Amino acid sequence: MSTTPGADGQAVIPRQVVNRLRRVEGQVRGITRMVEQDAYCIDVLTQVSAASRALQGVALLLLDEHMHHCLADASRAGEAIQAAKIREASEAITRLVRSS
Amino acid sequence: MSTTPGADGQAVIPRQVVNRLRRVEGQVRGITRMVEQDAYCIDVLTQVSAASRALQGVALLLLDEHMHHCLADASRAGEAIQAAKIREASEAITRLVRSS
Amino acid sequence: MSTTPGADGQAVIPRQVVNRLRRVEGQVRGITRMVEQDAYCIDVLTQVSAASRALQGVALLLLDEHMHHCLADASRAGEAIQAAKIREASEAITRLVRSS
Amino acid sequence: MSTTPGADGQAVIPRQVVNRLRRVEGQVRGITRMVEQDAYCIDVLTQVSAASRALQGVALLLLDEHMHHCLADASRAGEAIQAAKIREASEAITRLVRSS
Repeated sequence: MSTTPGADGQAVIPRQVVNRLRRVEGQVRGITRMVEQDAYCIDVLTQVSAASRALQGVALLLLDEHMHHCLADASRAGEAIQAAKIREASEAITRLVRSS
Repeated sequence: MSTTPGADGQAVIPRQVVNRLRRVEGQVRGITRMVEQDAYCIDVLTQVSAASRALQGVALLLLDEHMHHCLADASRAGEAIQAAKIREASEAITRLVRSS
Repeated sequence: MSTTPGADGQAVIPRQVVNRLRRVEGQVRGITRMVEQDAYCIDVLTQVSAASRALQGVALLLLDEHMHHCLADASRAGEAIQAAKIREASEAITRLVRSS
Repeated sequence: MSTTPGADGQAVIPRQVVNRLRRVEGQVRGITRMVEQDAYCIDVLTQVSAASRALQGVALLLLDEHMHHCLADASRAGEAIQAAKIREASEAITRLVRSS
């Protein structure tokens, strides 16, 4: 997932992905607390839907990033490698669509 | 979310929901680590799809639980309350389907 | 799916569902024509996403309708019947969420 | 969507897509008939879920096809065109994931 590095040398996209994942982790922890404190089911469900949507956003960001970098690189590595990379990305998209 | 209590007095379903949510939280933390360690995008995406599916499972369990308990209770509280509860559940289902 | 009948005696909701389904059918036929005329893949995909969303809307309308009528009726038929109806609805929601 | 042509000169993938779309169209028409004949909501919903899943399958097939052909071609057309094509595919994936 190498991308344009920011000022401190860490790639910009991974940092953004990490931040979003930490937020999702916090959301899930908050939902656990709600269930432990016997919160109303519908309120819990609303938060689960929000966390799902956030996780979906991370997946789409990762995929976009992957396509712009890895697929573009693969196209310079010859047709066989490119075909293999495209198959791999296509299978990841199928898993994502099926899971969401 | 009151349900049949287990031996120690804590309801069985919330405990199962809490366990599943803790597992999702661990999955998300693992994904964060993968991104920080610059894991291959496709492997990260596979884990995000798995976490999404697990979160969807929690939502379906909560909804099933809600319908069996809260909706059933509401039906004993009179038609107006029942109609309001059904509207509320129906809206939660819409949010869930739209987010997944 | 019996609902409040409109002026001509046909229930309002089924008529709305039928209209929406006919529109989805037309969308799918339009997509077939696009593919036959070798339209650009991305344009075809955009129409498939729109048809999917329309079909999802029909499902949510049917489910809402079902919950307001069949579940409400079931609650007057005794606890065992109500529990069976709720289980059935809950399974339908699972199939819907998993398919969408 | 040009692909390896079959014996009669028509590309293999589009023909497969057209066949699947015709089947989805038939499914949707069948669902309309069920609603008109006042079929049980849950049975209607089961068929809607099946049609949704079939439509999702068409989308994934189209996308896979697009990536193997259009993206691969784009990579031979220079970096700017490739980047534009990848952006376009990525946006189509987002619409697909959001609609499903």
